Amino acid sequence: VSLAPLPIDLPPVAEVARMPAGFRAGSVAAGIKASGRLDLGVLATTAGPASAAAVFTTNLIAAAPVRLSRAHLARSSGRVAAVLSTSGCANAATSAEGERDQAALVAALAAALGIEPELTIAISTGLIGTRLPVDVLRRPIAALAAGGLSDSNEALAGLADQMRTTDSRAKLATASLDLPAADGAPQPVVVSGVAKGVGMIHPSMATMLGLLLTDAAAEPATLQALLLPIVERTWNQLTVDGDTSTNDTVVLLASGASGAAPIAGDDAGRALRRAVEAVARSLARQQAADGEGATTLITCQVSGARDDPQARALARSVVASSLVKAAVHGRDPNWGRIAAAAGNARIDGRPAELAEPKLRIAICGVDVFAGRPLAFDRAGLARRMDAAEVLVRLDLGVGDGSGEAFGCDLSEAYVVENSAYSS
Amino acid sequence: VSLAPLPIDLPPVAEVARMPAGFRAGSVAAGIKASGRLDLGVLATTAGPASAAAVFTTNLIAAAPVRLSRAHLARSSGRVAAVLSTSGCANAATSAEGERDQAALVAALAAALGIEPELTIAISTGLIGTRLPVDVLRRPIAALAAGGLSDSNEALAGLADQMRTTDSRAKLATASLDLPAADGAPQPVVVSGVAKGVGMIHPSMATMLGLLLTDAAAEPATLQALLLPIVERTWNQLTVDGDTSTNDTVVLLASGASGAAPIAGDDAGRALRRAVEAVARSLARQQAADGEGATTLITCQVSGARDDPQARALARSVVASSLVKAAVHGRDPNWGRIAAAAGNARIDGRPAELAEPKLRIAICGVDVFAGRPLAFDRAGLARRMDAAEVLVRLDLGVGDGSGEAFGCDLSEAYVVENSAYSS
Repeated sequence: VSLAPLPIDLPPVAEVARMPAGFRAGSVAAGIKASGRLDLGVLATTAGPASAAAVFTTNLIAAAPVRLSRAHLARSSGRVAAVLSTSGCANAATSAEGERDQAALVAALAAALGIEPELTIAISTGLIGTRLPVDVLRRPIAALAAGGLSDSNEALAGLADQMRTTDSRAKLATASLDLPAADGAPQPVVVSGVAKGVGMIHPSMATMLGLLLTDAAAEPATLQALLLPIVERTWNQLTVDGDTSTNDTVVLLASGASGAAPIAGDDAGRALRRAVEAVARSLARQQAADGEGATTLITCQVSGARDDPQARALARSVVASSLVKAAVHGRDPNWGRIAAAAGNARIDGRPAELAEPKLRIAICGVDVFAGRPLAFDRAGLARRMDAAEVLVRLDLGVGDGSGEAFGCDLSEAYVVENSAYSS
Repeated sequence: VSLAPLPIDLPPVAEVARMPAGFRAGSVAAGIKASGRLDLGVLATTAGPASAAAVFTTNLIAAAPVRLSRAHLARSSGRVAAVLSTSGCANAATSAEGERDQAALVAALAAALGIEPELTIAISTGLIGTRLPVDVLRRPIAALAAGGLSDSNEALAGLADQMRTTDSRAKLATASLDLPAADGAPQPVVVSGVAKGVGMIHPSMATMLGLLLTDAAAEPATLQALLLPIVERTWNQLTVDGDTSTNDTVVLLASGASGAAPIAGDDAGRALRRAVEAVARSLARQQAADGEGATTLITCQVSGARDDPQARALARSVVASSLVKAAVHGRDPNWGRIAAAAGNARIDGRPAELAEPKLRIAICGVDVFAGRPLAFDRAGLARRMDAAEVLVRLDLGVGDGSGEAFGCDLSEAYVVENSAYSS
C-alpha cells in the first residue's frame, strides 16, 4: 500500500484579511526603511483590553521588544490594548539603550491612546544591531493613534504589509466558527492572523512575528494553554534556514467583542483551538512557501513514530537538511539524503526511534524506499517534483505518532539575497 | 583590550603524506566511479595487526561498512590488519543485501592477504542507496593485495586521493615526535592522517572518513581513550552544511613499528595525544576550507564560556549558521547574525550561559560588539574578510571555558553543486 498524505483534520482557512470585532489598525511609512515602504504599524482594541497569550524566541540575545512585551504581559496579567509594530530595525543587541528606545515608543503610543503603558506590547523585525529612530517616530505614532486607525479588513491587510522585510508578499489567514453566546444561541466568531518572516526562520517555542486575533472571549490563561500546543505543531515545525531569530514573537489576542460567551466548556475551547490552529498552520505554510530564494514549499509528514514529538522532530530534521533542500531545488528524487536527514533527528539531544528495515519513504506520492531501495520512474518523479509543493512522506513503523514540518528548497537566490542583505 | 586569537598549544603539522612504519597501501580505479578516478583503496599492516580506536557516525541510518567495522572491532578486541576503502558508493540504506556485499568484499581482501576477516574494517563514501559492484571489485582487490601495496609516502597520498568524492583536493597531515624506546632512548615516531569529506559534513561523535596512522605502540583501550576527546575538539567542531553523514568514520591505527615503547606513562601519552590532535585539527580545517562551494574557511573561537563544552557548542552554532555563512561569503561584517547564532547554541537541548551585556565579538581582529554595538570601519573590515580564513572571536565573560569550530562560507556554488549531484 502506497504512503498517502496525512489527514489534516482542521477547519478551512481563507488567505485573506478579515478584521475580527474589537480591533482596529493602521500603518504608515515613518522612515525606518530606506525604501520608503510601510514600517510603522499600530493595532489597538476598541472596547477595553483584549486577553492575550504569547510565546517568544528562545534566543538568548532576545530583542528589546521581546523583553518589553514579556515584562508588560507579566505586569498586566495578560491584558493588551495596543501593539506597536516596527519593521526595518530589529532593535536587537542594542543594549540598555535599545530597551529605553522601545519603552519610549510604547509610552508615546499609550499616551496618545490614553491607556496604561503596561497594556502595550511591541513587535519588531529587521536588521540586528541598529537603533530605532525614536524622535522620528513620535509624530507618526501620535498621528496614527489620533486618526489613522480603522476596523476595516484593509487596515489588517496593511498591518501585515507593514510587517514585511524580505517577505515577497503579506501572510494572511482567517477562519470562522460558531461559539455559543450567553443564551446558548450560536454566535459567529472570527479568528484571523497575520505573520511575517522568510529568513532567520527556525522557530523554537515561537517564531518570527505572528499576530492572531479573535473576537471570541477567553481568559489569558485559557488562551495561553490553547496557544502553546498549536505553536508546537505549526510554527515550531517551520524552518527556512535553521537560524532562530532574536525577535520571534507570536501573540494571540481575544477581544471578546463577538458576543460569544467566554470559553469555558471543552466543546467551545476545542472549536476555538481548531480554528486558531488552522490559521496558524496556514500562515506557517505561507511563510515556508515564501522562504528567501525559495521556489517550492517542502512539506514532510511522518507517521508510525513512537510518539508525536518524535514524528515532529524527524519531519523537521528532513525539511531543515541543506542537502534535501538543494536536491528538491534540483528536482532530484535523492531519497538517500532524506533517509540520512531522518537518521540525524534528535529530541533534546537524544536520537529518535528509527530502524532502517521498517522505514518507508515516498516523494510526491511515489514510494522510493521500504526497508530497501525500490525501483521507480526517476524522470517521472522529477517531473512531479517540479511543483509549488513537494510532499515527503515517511513512515517509521514503530508506533502511532505523527506530525509534519514545513520548509522550502535551497536556491542560489537564497545565497545571493543573504550575501547582499545590508549589514 | 582587543580580542586576540586563542592560543593553540599543539605541535607543528605538515600538510603532506608520510607513511608511518608498519603500514603499506595501494589504490586503483576499479570502476565504481563513472569518472574513471581512483575508487578502491587498501591499507594493510606489515608486521601483525595494529591497535585500533575508532568513532563512527551517530546517524541511525548507519552504512553497511560502519556496521561491519563496529562488529569486527568488537570481535577482534580492537586489532586491525587491513582497511578496505571504496568511494563513489556509500553502501548506505542498502538493507541486508548491502551488508552481505560489504562482508563479501572484506572476505576477499582477507583471503588475498591471508588474514582473519575480523581483522579487517571498511570505510566507504559516495551516493546513498546504491549497491557496490561486488563481482567487479574481486579482481582488483586480489591484485592490490598480491602486488599493489607499497610503504611509500606516495602510496599514502594515493589512498587520500582515492577517498575523494566532491573534495577538490586530498587532505593530508603529518606530525612527528619522540617517544622513549624500551631502553629509554628517544625514538622518532610519526603520526599521519588522511581524511575526506566536504559535504554532508556536520559530524556528531565522529566525522566523514578520517584515517590516523602512527608507528607508536599502544593498546586499543589507550588509543580509544586518547581519540575520543580529540574528536570532540576537532572533527566534531567541523560543519559544512549541517548534515551528519551515514558513513562518518574516524580510525586511529598504531602499528608499534617505530620501536618506541608502548604508551603507558603520562608524558608519552600526552605527547602522542598532542601529535594526534594536531594532525586531526589540521585535517578538519582542510576539510572546512574545501567545503562544497566554499571560498573561505571560517574559524570561530570562543573564550570566557562557563566550560569548554559550552564554548564548543557556541562556536559550532556560529559556523553552522546559514546567515553567518552567507554574510561571510558577501564579505559583510554583519555581526548581528553572529550574535543571533551564538544566542541559539544548545547543549543537549539546553541553552548555553550567555548574557548580552557581557558578550564581546571581534571579526578578523576588529572589535565590533562589547555589550553594545561598537563603531568600526565597515569597508576596511570587509576588505580584511576577503581572505582565505575569517576568524570570528567571541568572549562570553562568564567563565574560563574555551573552544573553536571550523566551517566555511555558503556560496551559490554549494547550491548548484548539490542541486546537480546525481541521485
